[in-house]
Amino acid sequence: MTSAVPDTGLLAPGWAGSPAASATSDTACLQALLDAEAALTRAQASLGLAPAEAATAVTEAADAGRYDVRSLAERARGGGNPVIPLVADLTKAVGAEYGPYVHRGATSQDIMDTATMLIAARTLNLILTDLARTERALARLAAEHRDTAMPGRTLTQHAVPITFGLKAAGWRSLVLDARDRVAAVRDVLPAQLGGAAGTLAAFGAYGASDPTALPTAYALELGLQTPELPWHTLRTPVADLAGCLALTAGALGKLAADVLTLSRTEIAEVTEGSGGASSAMPHKANPVRSTLIVAAARRAPQLAATLYACLVAEDERPAGAWHAEWEPLRELLRLTGGAARDAAELAEGLRVHPDLMREHLGLTQGLIVSERLSAELAPVLGRARAKELLTRLAADGRPLSDAPELKDVDLDPAHYTGCAGTLVDRALERR
Amino acid sequence: MTSAVPDTGLLAPGWAGSPAASATSDTACLQALLDAEAALTRAQASLGLAPAEAATAVTEAADAGRYDVRSLAERARGGGNPVIPLVADLTKAVGAEYGPYVHRGATSQDIMDTATMLIAARTLNLILTDLARTERALARLAAEHRDTAMPGRTLTQHAVPITFGLKAAGWRSLVLDARDRVAAVRDVLPAQLGGAAGTLAAFGAYGASDPTALPTAYALELGLQTPELPWHTLRTPVADLAGCLALTAGALGKLAADVLTLSRTEIAEVTEGSGGASSAMPHKANPVRSTLIVAAARRAPQLAATLYACLVAEDERPAGAWHAEWEPLRELLRLTGGAARDAAELAEGLRVHPDLMREHLGLTQGLIVSERLSAELAPVLGRARAKELLTRLAADGRPLSDAPELKDVDLDPAHYTGCAGTLVDRALERR
Amino acid sequence: MTSAVPDTGLLAPGWAGSPAASATSDTACLQALLDAEAALTRAQASLGLAPAEAATAVTEAADAGRYDVRSLAERARGGGNPVIPLVADLTKAVGAEYGPYVHRGATSQDIMDTATMLIAARTLNLILTDLARTERALARLAAEHRDTAMPGRTLTQHAVPITFGLKAAGWRSLVLDARDRVAAVRDVLPAQLGGAAGTLAAFGAYGASDPTALPTAYALELGLQTPELPWHTLRTPVADLAGCLALTAGALGKLAADVLTLSRTEIAEVTEGSGGASSAMPHKANPVRSTLIVAAARRAPQLAATLYACLVAEDERPAGAWHAEWEPLRELLRLTGGAARDAAELAEGLRVHPDLMREHLGLTQGLIVSERLSAELAPVLGRARAKELLTRLAADGRPLSDAPELKDVDLDPAHYTGCAGTLVDRALERR
Amino acid sequence: MTSAVPDTGLLAPGWAGSPAASATSDTACLQALLDAEAALTRAQASLGLAPAEAATAVTEAADAGRYDVRSLAERARGGGNPVIPLVADLTKAVGAEYGPYVHRGATSQDIMDTATMLIAARTLNLILTDLARTERALARLAAEHRDTAMPGRTLTQHAVPITFGLKAAGWRSLVLDARDRVAAVRDVLPAQLGGAAGTLAAFGAYGASDPTALPTAYALELGLQTPELPWHTLRTPVADLAGCLALTAGALGKLAADVLTLSRTEIAEVTEGSGGASSAMPHKANPVRSTLIVAAARRAPQLAATLYACLVAEDERPAGAWHAEWEPLRELLRLTGGAARDAAELAEGLRVHPDLMREHLGLTQGLIVSERLSAELAPVLGRARAKELLTRLAADGRPLSDAPELKDVDLDPAHYTGCAGTLVDRALERR
Repeated sequence: MTSAVPDTGLLAPGWAGSPAASATSDTACLQALLDAEAALTRAQASLGLAPAEAATAVTEAADAGRYDVRSLAERARGGGNPVIPLVADLTKAVGAEYGPYVHRGATSQDIMDTATMLIAARTLNLILTDLARTERALARLAAEHRDTAMPGRTLTQHAVPITFGLKAAGWRSLVLDARDRVAAVRDVLPAQLGGAAGTLAAFGAYGASDPTALPTAYALELGLQTPELPWHTLRTPVADLAGCLALTAGALGKLAADVLTLSRTEIAEVTEGSGGASSAMPHKANPVRSTLIVAAARRAPQLAATLYACLVAEDERPAGAWHAEWEPLRELLRLTGGAARDAAELAEGLRVHPDLMREHLGLTQGLIVSERLSAELAPVLGRARAKELLTRLAADGRPLSDAPELKDVDLDPAHYTGCAGTLVDRALERR
Repeated sequence: MTSAVPDTGLLAPGWAGSPAASATSDTACLQALLDAEAALTRAQASLGLAPAEAATAVTEAADAGRYDVRSLAERARGGGNPVIPLVADLTKAVGAEYGPYVHRGATSQDIMDTATMLIAARTLNLILTDLARTERALARLAAEHRDTAMPGRTLTQHAVPITFGLKAAGWRSLVLDARDRVAAVRDVLPAQLGGAAGTLAAFGAYGASDPTALPTAYALELGLQTPELPWHTLRTPVADLAGCLALTAGALGKLAADVLTLSRTEIAEVTEGSGGASSAMPHKANPVRSTLIVAAARRAPQLAATLYACLVAEDERPAGAWHAEWEPLRELLRLTGGAARDAAELAEGLRVHPDLMREHLGLTQGLIVSERLSAELAPVLGRARAKELLTRLAADGRPLSDAPELKDVDLDPAHYTGCAGTLVDRALERR
Repeated sequence: MTSAVPDTGLLAPGWAGSPAASATSDTACLQALLDAEAALTRAQASLGLAPAEAATAVTEAADAGRYDVRSLAERARGGGNPVIPLVADLTKAVGAEYGPYVHRGATSQDIMDTATMLIAARTLNLILTDLARTERALARLAAEHRDTAMPGRTLTQHAVPITFGLKAAGWRSLVLDARDRVAAVRDVLPAQLGGAAGTLAAFGAYGASDPTALPTAYALELGLQTPELPWHTLRTPVADLAGCLALTAGALGKLAADVLTLSRTEIAEVTEGSGGASSAMPHKANPVRSTLIVAAARRAPQLAATLYACLVAEDERPAGAWHAEWEPLRELLRLTGGAARDAAELAEGLRVHPDLMREHLGLTQGLIVSERLSAELAPVLGRARAKELLTRLAADGRPLSDAPELKDVDLDPAHYTGCAGTLVDRALERR
Repeated sequence: MTSAVPDTGLLAPGWAGSPAASATSDTACLQALLDAEAALTRAQASLGLAPAEAATAVTEAADAGRYDVRSLAERARGGGNPVIPLVADLTKAVGAEYGPYVHRGATSQDIMDTATMLIAARTLNLILTDLARTERALARLAAEHRDTAMPGRTLTQHAVPITFGLKAAGWRSLVLDARDRVAAVRDVLPAQLGGAAGTLAAFGAYGASDPTALPTAYALELGLQTPELPWHTLRTPVADLAGCLALTAGALGKLAADVLTLSRTEIAEVTEGSGGASSAMPHKANPVRSTLIVAAARRAPQLAATLYACLVAEDERPAGAWHAEWEPLRELLRLTGGAARDAAELAEGLRVHPDLMREHLGLTQGLIVSERLSAELAPVLGRARAKELLTRLAADGRPLSDAPELKDVDLDPAHYTGCAGTLVDRALERR
């Protein structure tokens, strides 16, 4: 048996090495915890509750590089969270004089939740950057292929023609939905400060005349929002993160699922920019970006479900519901962050093959426009006879263009894309 | 073996008989499907694409009472959705002259999705009404018990005092969060209209000069929003419903979980207004409302997860991802609707026992204010000696008030509620 | 707003009208509750704890047709479960003399859990029947197409050839795995009998000298197993049901997902026996059975998750964890039951197109056997040169058979199916 | 922003530092991958398909310490899995002569799945050890407290008396259920070997006369089972792992949830052996083990759901469904492993307070035996009058023993524990 060794993402090609992985690593978490502690002392200093020197001392000591993450992780077990051993180590690092100002009046959850919001803010920003890249690339594809006709597929079967531009515009629309939701959540991420049971009582005991000023000062130090109430067991911020991240993963998953289908050997209407090579099978170019995005989208909903379930957090601080949030939220952040990175590369590198799209429009021998024929023949032949005719022609298996009854009808699938172009134009107006 | 018989909610005391159950029943769904069909013909008539008489005929025939729900359900199996047999029946009911205007140019999903949004809009309104009742009752409790001291509990143990008002204000804050999210989603529920593959092509084939005018007219008929694009596989509206409903169920679940704890025989600080009686055990008054709400909150996250996962919907209309949405979304709507009804009754009827709260503040022999003592004694005795003293007193198990060292200290737990009152006041300013 | 009307499966083409739907309907549940009550009185009579006439009277009154399901559903709300009002109605129906023997000594959960196990047993039997049909049809396909070569696809791309028989044998293997797990769970479904808190105390109070004999007699009446302990909060039987049903839904989902892919217009290597027709698009034959199965497989895991989570059931009977089981378990049973019905039809009707499979083997110009060439050329040319050659040929895009270097090599993909045939033979030995 | 740093469990006090964490770390995974590669070459050598020296060379090079996990993790992104870069590094390490025998004929998934089964086998063994410890400790508690009366609680309210022994026996029964299921799954964990598309074709191309002998030889090298068929997309082994682990986490979660309730300040009938201390609140002894177990139980069901959903794996190797398994399965293994460790400590250290249990039996003034009174008085007074009497006495709020009507009745709750003792005895017979 090997000794315990940290996770480096060996099982996670979807996020290993990504900026989101860095932003959510254990060291990043440790730094965020320290940032929260330092901000707390600074906020107290700003209100005259601690000497300025204490704030400086804590801020200087709040450097993740000075602490042993693994040791903290293992000592976290004693009290059930890593803040308890960290406060001990940080207090020691700050020294005897200003040590008493470390964590003063706070509870572990104040620091842990605040750190989580810092991590979330940083990762959401990365995600927004990659969603913006993805959106721009898709806008370009939508504009370029506004009128590139291809088969519309429903329940796996050719239905009526669409344009690739419309498909790309739809993907982009989902990405913009994700962006809007992520940005909205990011803008309101709150700091957490309540003390042992959310009354801010200890701050008063330590001398604050109006402890309610402290959360505001604290949030200001951190670039987070002041919460309406301490939210130790009012977990809307976590649930909102769950929702926007699950939506983002799903939105990118739709794009990826379509690319996977369109990449199939028999279809090949699009190709990923840089496919995954296979040494033994040199012809293979696996759609790896799409594969990893789809894998993320398979996991995100259940991670979000765990977080939504943690809304049911009993008492003033719960025994388990809170602890169950930490890993799923981090996982959801980095999984979605990795998927956003992959989606940006996918969208920017996607190669489109209009010739094959055009070719596939002919696979059903013209029947892909049978809806049009139904609509146009019905007034002439009557609905029943029109349908009968089409059914017979479909059964024949010969090209519709051979049918003498249809010789004056426009059977070109590329002429039956409806309002696809207009819809693309309108969708691209959205910024 | 008995013959197939419909579900009446026998296994669902959480929603049986509720307005939300009515609003989401199969008959309600059938009516919504018919409403969507009728609105489509009316919208076409309003744009000159169908005779006014056709609109009237379809609207008149669009009465759920005229159709056999069970037969439709069983015939839905053939094509995989209930719209296909319904269109057949509705067309027949409308008659030969105007029958051809039924469902003209639409695809099943246009009708199904639109009906789903109608059902959602109606149920969300019911939920908002019950959330409003709940919020008002909680506001009253928060104001009334602004200063009612009780033990704050963390990880199941007494921590420091809080007030019941602060607890109630927190519950209310969650309810308002739920309300805000539900209302925001309700306001943007879109109609669905795209035709076979989302290009609106058939409407053109049937003579519309600008088919993109049709979704707007259609949405107007229905009181829904015009979508940016047909959203057959852009499922943000469904995901947004999942998110706001999971949050609502969880928010109410927090309230209920707290009531369950506080109702325990040993605690009994609150009592449900009308407890569930037991025939053999006349002393029992089970917290049934809370139980049913908590049960709903256990189910909602996974229902939401299924819906988020359905964002990954391949092609122009997917084979399965769409079909998997219908039942979970309906279930989530009525489950949350039932929970909101129960929460309103729970909040309105909740009986609070300040005497027991006060009594429990003494259970730890004064140690519930040890945080205060730590803070106040540390400057005097030094941090280490202060802690030592308290640990010794705690080990003794005698009342702190017996300790001569503490004879000048205010040990009344009711005087150590921090900013609870101010926090309540501020929270109640939110409307 | 329409009035409340029962669910008939309008939103559930996957199970509407199926035997599993009948076996799990509200009426079936009511009957099972009544069966449990009658068995309890009979068991007491068999031990001399009740007159034989009481057993007869309760058994006669235990007819679902005599009770109002809707009324029971709505009255269930008062105490949180339907047994409470049912006992009242049943007692009344039995009459003054033997009424006191109704439900004597039992708790609601005894009856509810036992009824659930009855429902489960009945539905699992239906599922086993349909799995057997599916398995037989797949065995036939595997044998018939033991050597029918087709492209093996990995990450959506052609990899190396397989045979359709191997694919069908794999599907069958999963179906047999499901069958084994379902049968194992069915064989141990326990009756539930513990009284108010699982001590069987009330039965003693009513005169039983050894109340532990009662669960055995009760289980015997019902054809269920005697539990080791009352399992009000030891929910292994429910978790086991969750597991075997989620596995079954997933196993069938794999079959269906493959059929969906192979049915695509561009692939068309298999066709569902009776496709879903489209009125406006007569060429479409939607793979509806597969679509509905896949939809079930998308929902089952989250329903199972809810049930697994309910293992965490506090106290002697929990407030919520139990109540949250009823609907998800029923839904999982009928969803899987419906999927099994669809899978049987799918497997029995599946049409296979070996000609198209053969044709597709040529789509990569022979590169589908490049793995073989790598292996065979490496010893001759050296690994590096062999790879170089293949990469060059792949880049050329011309048929490999044109390459002079390969003129003596067997390039027929149908000759490179490895051990597919042997694997099929072995797999078919499993019964 | 800090640079990427590996996870050390900082957010995971539930498993940080545990044997399960070591057994599932990235280094352990890397070692398992190498073990699989070495076993493959050895198996080939055992069948004469590779020189013995090659087997020795690969086995020697298969030492995780020689490879850069982080680099492998980041290079895994290119092809979507870590085996691809690992094969390159391993081949290089083995050297020119025997390098060609590395990974010969295999596909990445053969190695990855096999490694996963090795990791699973090792971790399940650790879990079984901790379940055995837990079971023994609970058996001891059950025997010791066979007759220790305490309140039975249902829907949070006192119902009728039970014994603590019965509760402990129930916990143990669940632990044994978990053990049985985990052991059954462990015993059949299969090796994976199929080659590119599961036909074993490449092994034939490399000269094996009967490639089907290879999986057997390979499994033998690894101590795993020979699979019936290559199971690249027949994921029963993964689903079975999901099921037994979700059940285990839930079973332990039930134990922990009960301990949390019984530990509440107002109840305090049990105490964790070593509580989590709080520096500011010296009276607090948080039930940390239970908290962490409950947190694991909140997460396991959704992780299992993701794995069950991955049964729907299209084609011969899927694009995403497989990739989505790796992290959830590892997480489920170590989360459950950590919970089993915590449960063993919890059970071994649990302190029981029979005096408080006894005291609480009196909280309802004797009404906790009202069920008994109902049963015993009904024959004497008639059912209606008996109920009336009890309801009146309950409303009075005075001790039942004061009621003259009951002066001859045994009101001692400790005498109304039914068959608790016998049930404990029987349950303890199970080994």
